Amino acid sequence: MMARLHALALVFLWGLVGSWIVLAHAEVDREKLLTEPGIYGTFAVFELDDKWGWLEPSTRIARLATLKGVVEQHREHVAIDVYLLRGLSDQADVLFRIHATELRNAQEFLLDLQSSRFGKHLEPVRVMHGLTKKPNYVPGFSDQIKTDLKSPSEAGEKPYAIVIPIKKSAEWWGLDQEKRTTLMQEHTAATLPFLKTIKRKLYHSSGLNDIDFITYFETSSLEDFHSLVLSLEKVKEFEYTRQFGNPTLLGTVQSLDEIIEILAQ
Amino acid sequence: MMARLHALALVFLWGLVGSWIVLAHAEVDREKLLTEPGIYGTFAVFELDDKWGWLEPSTRIARLATLKGVVEQHREHVAIDVYLLRGLSDQADVLFRIHATELRNAQEFLLDLQSSRFGKHLEPVRVMHGLTKKPNYVPGFSDQIKTDLKSPSEAGEKPYAIVIPIKKSAEWWGLDQEKRTTLMQEHTAATLPFLKTIKRKLYHSSGLNDIDFITYFETSSLEDFHSLVLSLEKVKEFEYTRQFGNPTLLGTVQSLDEIIEILAQ
Amino acid sequence: MMARLHALALVFLWGLVGSWIVLAHAEVDREKLLTEPGIYGTFAVFELDDKWGWLEPSTRIARLATLKGVVEQHREHVAIDVYLLRGLSDQADVLFRIHATELRNAQEFLLDLQSSRFGKHLEPVRVMHGLTKKPNYVPGFSDQIKTDLKSPSEAGEKPYAIVIPIKKSAEWWGLDQEKRTTLMQEHTAATLPFLKTIKRKLYHSSGLNDIDFITYFETSSLEDFHSLVLSLEKVKEFEYTRQFGNPTLLGTVQSLDEIIEILAQ
Amino acid sequence: MMARLHALALVFLWGLVGSWIVLAHAEVDREKLLTEPGIYGTFAVFELDDKWGWLEPSTRIARLATLKGVVEQHREHVAIDVYLLRGLSDQADVLFRIHATELRNAQEFLLDLQSSRFGKHLEPVRVMHGLTKKPNYVPGFSDQIKTDLKSPSEAGEKPYAIVIPIKKSAEWWGLDQEKRTTLMQEHTAATLPFLKTIKRKLYHSSGLNDIDFITYFETSSLEDFHSLVLSLEKVKEFEYTRQFGNPTLLGTVQSLDEIIEILAQ
Amino acid sequence: MMARLHALALVFLWGLVGSWIVLAHAEVDREKLLTEPGIYGTFAVFELDDKWGWLEPSTRIARLATLKGVVEQHREHVAIDVYLLRGLSDQADVLFRIHATELRNAQEFLLDLQSSRFGKHLEPVRVMHGLTKKPNYVPGFSDQIKTDLKSPSEAGEKPYAIVIPIKKSAEWWGLDQEKRTTLMQEHTAATLPFLKTIKRKLYHSSGLNDIDFITYFETSSLEDFHSLVLSLEKVKEFEYTRQFGNPTLLGTVQSLDEIIEILAQ
Repeated sequence: MMARLHALALVFLWGLVGSWIVLAHAEVDREKLLTEPGIYGTFAVFELDDKWGWLEPSTRIARLATLKGVVEQHREHVAIDVYLLRGLSDQADVLFRIHATELRNAQEFLLDLQSSRFGKHLEPVRVMHGLTKKPNYVPGFSDQIKTDLKSPSEAGEKPYAIVIPIKKSAEWWGLDQEKRTTLMQEHTAATLPFLKTIKRKLYHSSGLNDIDFITYFETSSLEDFHSLVLSLEKVKEFEYTRQFGNPTLLGTVQSLDEIIEILAQ
Repeated sequence: MMARLHALALVFLWGLVGSWIVLAHAEVDREKLLTEPGIYGTFAVFELDDKWGWLEPSTRIARLATLKGVVEQHREHVAIDVYLLRGLSDQADVLFRIHATELRNAQEFLLDLQSSRFGKHLEPVRVMHGLTKKPNYVPGFSDQIKTDLKSPSEAGEKPYAIVIPIKKSAEWWGLDQEKRTTLMQEHTAATLPFLKTIKRKLYHSSGLNDIDFITYFETSSLEDFHSLVLSLEKVKEFEYTRQFGNPTLLGTVQSLDEIIEILAQ
Repeated sequence: MMARLHALALVFLWGLVGSWIVLAHAEVDREKLLTEPGIYGTFAVFELDDKWGWLEPSTRIARLATLKGVVEQHREHVAIDVYLLRGLSDQADVLFRIHATELRNAQEFLLDLQSSRFGKHLEPVRVMHGLTKKPNYVPGFSDQIKTDLKSPSEAGEKPYAIVIPIKKSAEWWGLDQEKRTTLMQEHTAATLPFLKTIKRKLYHSSGLNDIDFITYFETSSLEDFHSLVLSLEKVKEFEYTRQFGNPTLLGTVQSLDEIIEILAQ
Repeated sequence: MMARLHALALVFLWGLVGSWIVLAHAEVDREKLLTEPGIYGTFAVFELDDKWGWLEPSTRIARLATLKGVVEQHREHVAIDVYLLRGLSDQADVLFRIHATELRNAQEFLLDLQSSRFGKHLEPVRVMHGLTKKPNYVPGFSDQIKTDLKSPSEAGEKPYAIVIPIKKSAEWWGLDQEKRTTLMQEHTAATLPFLKTIKRKLYHSSGLNDIDFITYFETSSLEDFHSLVLSLEKVKEFEYTRQFGNPTLLGTVQSLDEIIEILAQ
Repeated sequence: MMARLHALALVFLWGLVGSWIVLAHAEVDREKLLTEPGIYGTFAVFELDDKWGWLEPSTRIARLATLKGVVEQHREHVAIDVYLLRGLSDQADVLFRIHATELRNAQEFLLDLQSSRFGKHLEPVRVMHGLTKKPNYVPGFSDQIKTDLKSPSEAGEKPYAIVIPIKKSAEWWGLDQEKRTTLMQEHTAATLPFLKTIKRKLYHSSGLNDIDFITYFETSSLEDFHSLVLSLEKVKEFEYTRQFGNPTLLGTVQSLDEIIEILAQ
């Protein structure tokens, strides 16, 4: 759908810049960062400034090369994913999801990003942090649900990503662990029909921001995702939710090269 | 009421650009997108930037040609309607309503729109998405209401469009289907006197934004529309509504050529 | 209090421009628009942009002539009143109140206003619409109150105007007509002592914006107006009010020529 | 603490401008405006624009002379106090407190201020109005409290000023006068220990803005002021307060010449 | 992680400027200001303006020298700490924490800071003040808790700082001292496991802003800090909290030289 005007130029450029960088930097253990507990996840949302759109294509391409450079450089310490929010979310163009063992590492990446020739065009809209932890309530669930939770999600492309911050009420935190486990088991049962088409990841945020959780989803079917949220609104636990979304971030999963090609237009 | 200064120039320009584009692009099945379930509707609200008003008329006309071009190009994949909000809604000038089988297609249109020479003057104010679905509660309604609902709306111009996002309370979602059906039947009965002069379309939004529904209306009589909303505020179901409007978008239905002529002033 | 530097130039200019326009355009039936039910009232609030203050006086005067021109031109279809909010209301400089039989006519005026050389300096802050209707509750009031309501307001200047948007709670709309009539009779009784010095006009807004009513007042005594609002806060009906003001717009009533002279400074 | 670079230039300038103006304008009866009931108080908060800081010192001084001029000119009709909020309050640099017998007079001052060469750099942040009235509840207090209330505040500098807007709940206004008097007596008793170091002035705002009261304080001890507010939070009347602050404005009391010297830096 | 391009230039510059300033200014008793009651703490949050990023490196370095100068100059009267929020907090780049015996001293520092060549690039985002006081509730706690509270925090770097403003409900302030002591003892008990890795400081804010407390933390482990907040959300006292965060400020502790080096990039 988009003009391929500068595609060749870009490919050529990344050929040069990219390979040099890959040689120069060892990559962090991405698999580990994305699956283990005790890892920090940072969600940094940016808007492009007014100047960006009016730059000459060649200037845009040159500046996007600095984005590529910064990302490659920091892949030594953090795992970086990019998403295109423009057109799908309110006043937001790009989302970076950064996994790190220390938030300082995510800060260093974002500092270098914002200092780069490309990054100077990025206006920070919002940043959220969370921590991955071992499941809190699953050990208390029935064996059936524990088994069901192990069914893997379908292979294949999941082009859409959704990020929903959540804050629970004081009343929720005042419930004892057993009561909360019962409620979360009902909540979890409602999610089972959607395990195939929707991948989910949970981050704990209390104290790091003004929310309690960041829920991250990838899906091949937004209709399924809509049905999932509708199911979750209907369980009792939802009454203890003070904030659900606000903002809901909706975007498409992109590789770094894809997003650079889109932003070069 | 508006100066026709450049009307001729515009007509001439569209004559050239328009016909070429119509030849080059097949159009999506608009009728299907506007009537079937399982279709995504995107409502994208924009403001014109400060620069737009101070451009030379000839520059404005040249840039508006890129709007025409982008819309025509994407009509292959999405159905696009345009509305003029300026003067009727808070800090909003133009609304695009886009119907697509996949939200990615709407995103691609909006990316190309915002990258166009005209689109660089558009500041995104708000974007909302919803999904069309088969009626949820109608199957449980009385036969009388089912029959009444089938009476068609009056033919003739319906120049006003209103978009009202709606969020229900957690309590609403906690009610069982039967209870909700009873409440929605009362709600629906209140709308029957207005079927003639007001057309309505419902989009389901939970999970795609921070609202549950987008309600879209077209009417020939804003006085009737006011009476309709007043009636809806008086039924019991309204007590389960946490957000109604905020914003209410009010505008006039326009063809692409009309809106281009207005923006060219 | 204000410099009369360019007053003569202005008078001269209006002498020329004004008389020509008055000849060219028939005026709408203003009296009818301001008194009958079924009329739309639009309240459009603007701020002047940063550039305005730094323009040369002669440029300002030339641009203000376009304001005069647009207003005169549209007086054929709509009734237009102007108010100076600067210094009295938050981040608002000018208010236009437009009465029209169709909201499209108000939109056309505002489009032409914003496209004019002067209007390009106006930043839209807020726009609200309402509809005039026959009294809802008065027919159910006691004869005494009906009589009292007929006492005319004092002649003489009422230099202050106040606009207060109002939203009622869902509970209010859930009350039956009789109960609401009883509450509104108490409300209305509280206003009787102020009929002499305060003129009031009511617009019904449900569905046209995110409010239910726009209440418009003109008064010679803001102290009386304060006492009136205090009285209204003490009646039972006030407990059903979810929004009162937010914003309260306070300004001074001005003729078009007065406001032009002030803005020319 | 601040550079005295241009102090001499300023003194010289005020010597010339100031004395001329003092001769030319009779001053309003300031004492009367500041003590009598039936007087309007306007609190106008401004931020300096981005350009101000980058002006040449000589330009700044020339423009500040227009501030001096406007203030002197309007002292014929209104009493004007100035406060420095920068560094102490959120996004606010300067506060003008204006006492007038008619709000039109305050509006005229603010119009001339904003039209002056200095005033074009002032961005209006917020404006609030209130009316002074005879004490509402004191006549119903015990003799002891009436006597205690008469003890004068300590002489000496009170360098800090605090402005706290207040909105009461609908429930408060629904209480009868006797009940409100009892609650206000408890409230007032809590303030007695602080009469020495804290001066207080009350403005009634209902209908003039979206608040019910503006409370204005001057103090030599912010620690005492903190203790006063803590005491007021603990009395029963506080439960009927829907808004307390938001914003709380905190600043230092300055003479016009002092604030001009500071802004000249 | 960050380029050391201008590091040598910076070191050289500070060598010259810094030592001269240290000779010229006696420092305030920082230890006393940071530990005693009756001290004011100001938290001033700034964003860098759009121009900063596009300045030449040499210009940036020259302007940062003015930051160094202002800080050194005011160290005579106030204790100043700096934090880097960029990348970790929403729309905030730098936080200054200023301790002073009088808020006027903090205001004077901030005035000079904002007037400096560097400070003109700082856009004030938020400023909060609080007062240190002797413990309110500890005297009423059990001996065990009193003893536990004395255990010192671990030595070693605590690179993260968190600032959480807190507002209690009217209901909280309506409780008697004994009841509040009981609730605060439970609250305090929940914090004991975290004394080793988390340092905490409390400021009382009622009347100085729209909050009641500013809580300040330093920690070596954000995971521990998250667990602490989770524990605090679960005690009964949390139900009396109306605002917790909003904003939560998260940043890294930096020396003045470190932050200058980072901002020079």
